[in-house]
Amino acid sequence: MKVGDIKFQTIWIKPENPSVIQIIDQRKLPFKFVIEDIASVEEMFIAIKDMHLRGAPLIGAAGAFGMYLAVIEKDTKTKTSEYYQEVAQYLVSSRPTAVNLEYSVNRILSRLLETKDHDRQKRAALTEALAIVGEELENCRRIGEYGQNLIQQISQTKNGETVNILTHCNAGWLACIDYGTATSPIYFAHDKGIKLHVWVDETRPRNQGARLTAWELGQHGVPHTVIADNTGGHLMQHGMVDMVIVGSDRTTVTGDVANKIGTYLKALAAKDNNVPFYVALPSSTFDWNLTDGVNQIPVEERDASEIRFVEGIEGASVKIVDTLPKNSPALNLGFDVTPARLITGLITERGICKASRESILTLFPEKKV
Amino acid sequence: MKVGDIKFQTIWIKPENPSVIQIIDQRKLPFKFVIEDIASVEEMFIAIKDMHLRGAPLIGAAGAFGMYLAVIEKDTKTKTSEYYQEVAQYLVSSRPTAVNLEYSVNRILSRLLETKDHDRQKRAALTEALAIVGEELENCRRIGEYGQNLIQQISQTKNGETVNILTHCNAGWLACIDYGTATSPIYFAHDKGIKLHVWVDETRPRNQGARLTAWELGQHGVPHTVIADNTGGHLMQHGMVDMVIVGSDRTTVTGDVANKIGTYLKALAAKDNNVPFYVALPSSTFDWNLTDGVNQIPVEERDASEIRFVEGIEGASVKIVDTLPKNSPALNLGFDVTPARLITGLITERGICKASRESILTLFPEKKV
Repeated sequence: MKVGDIKFQTIWIKPENPSVIQIIDQRKLPFKFVIEDIASVEEMFIAIKDMHLRGAPLIGAAGAFGMYLAVIEKDTKTKTSEYYQEVAQYLVSSRPTAVNLEYSVNRILSRLLETKDHDRQKRAALTEALAIVGEELENCRRIGEYGQNLIQQISQTKNGETVNILTHCNAGWLACIDYGTATSPIYFAHDKGIKLHVWVDETRPRNQGARLTAWELGQHGVPHTVIADNTGGHLMQHGMVDMVIVGSDRTTVTGDVANKIGTYLKALAAKDNNVPFYVALPSSTFDWNLTDGVNQIPVEERDASEIRFVEGIEGASVKIVDTLPKNSPALNLGFDVTPARLITGLITERGICKASRESILTLFPEKKV
Repeated sequence: MKVGDIKFQTIWIKPENPSVIQIIDQRKLPFKFVIEDIASVEEMFIAIKDMHLRGAPLIGAAGAFGMYLAVIEKDTKTKTSEYYQEVAQYLVSSRPTAVNLEYSVNRILSRLLETKDHDRQKRAALTEALAIVGEELENCRRIGEYGQNLIQQISQTKNGETVNILTHCNAGWLACIDYGTATSPIYFAHDKGIKLHVWVDETRPRNQGARLTAWELGQHGVPHTVIADNTGGHLMQHGMVDMVIVGSDRTTVTGDVANKIGTYLKALAAKDNNVPFYVALPSSTFDWNLTDGVNQIPVEERDASEIRFVEGIEGASVKIVDTLPKNSPALNLGFDVTPARLITGLITERGICKASRESILTLFPEKKV
């Protein structure tokens, strides 16, 4: 999507030097827009581990390009099968819970193991990495096309008046290669000229809504307003939200959705006020073995310092301030689970379905046991 | 309640000089504990207006002491009835929507207008101000005594295991003279030796939970943990909350409660998980004319800068950082309304009742039309 007037994606091969991968260093957003050169496996490992980039689809692509760098890197190591296997393991260890990362890295690895010829390996790694990027792009594009119809229908019901959409966290293009998941229908509808406005939940404690979603919507020219996470319920009570669209970190086959902490509270408010609540997700977030999200999906406990410390700018410099009483402990949970009964529908790359096993399996019949 | 090892209230007459009122400058908490001398009507006006102190009961007491200062202030103005009326108007204008402020100031004013004798005025103003303080104290004490029974019952059901209580914003002793409203049952139960732990909602955007509630609980030795406002739903889904207690800014005769934005979302989660949801309130928050909170209570829109800027400390100095993209607008709403159907009970100074007109009027029969 656009940054200023230029179209960007989140990861690409440097035009001046195809041995270098470039990414947007997302840690610095929205305060600084920094493009980072990644020229080695080690640098890609750090970029993933220290969250220069984040978001399941993007992490997957980064892992794939990491394997490509392993092939073309001019180091003294002999490029044996064992070497590639070690690199793959090393890259996967940068974010051990990211399913997409393991999948992508192993996909490149298996292509590399097919041949001993270095030139062929180079070509295979690049082709496969670009294929992964292309597939992720295509998933997001389709989610956008299916989802925009929902927005268009609401727009028609409102006789073209502004459609107000609430979103939580960042399921935006910054988490993907382009378009995003939850934001993809928004970008497609906006670019088509449908009048819309997005309520952006700040998304404490890491503020991905305030820092990333607000930034990317603003850069692309989409009207939006940042709100405290506490605000959505009131807005829905007063008819100021026409629909909610969020992303998903993990989805059960029965339609329960694990997403950023706080999503469940917005889903409750949507239900209480008859506001449609949609989850946009590539089918890779389905865990086909799970049937009870609340009880089966383990919730990540993150460092309490993310609650205590807030980053922002003062003048021209980025500062981190401590917001809590010195001796008060904090608990930082990464996500919560929204039960299927609160979800109006799932927007996937294969179309829209209800949040139920039956309806999901209609779109994914190959998963029927 | 305790600060360190010393018992404090939020407002008092300076022991060394009874012509001076002292308060805790709450703007500086939790980073610095500063006691401020208030020696003139002008200084009290600023303290109320610029929120050195806040909370309906405390603002009322501050207004009363402001009138007392008008009597004893050694200035050149003749202390006529007109003068006192002007001062009263001036003090009320410091927070024009605070009902308690107008009530307290007028109560002192009417005592002052009863006599032209300056010594008698002085005595009357002081007696009446202390009476107001005493009444507020007594209200909070009773709320604490009634409310602690609820906590004790849960403690017994759990065989003395820790009772987990969630609260939102600061309805603590810092908002009152002592004890608080929502916190009063907590302090009473804690001081009685009942094992409990408080989940403190950070309460964006002004962070009253993180800054004030966590601080006062910590100083008094009550076990507590700060959480992002997004977290309560997940905790309730997993049996980690035994009850919710919040305060109220305004309560309809039908039991709808206007309280800090985000309260409604917690009430929805409590309902969805069968967690008892209580509101602690002095009866002065009842608006006996209102029957539909969501549609009749106007919601204050505050400055968007409260969303954008976050205050904290960096090293030894208090800093304010900007957390949003430069051009992203924000909307800052002060409170929301929790419908009576989501509320288990109201804890008042006259006892506990259901959130319904019938039950409320049983405790306040004089309000029956």
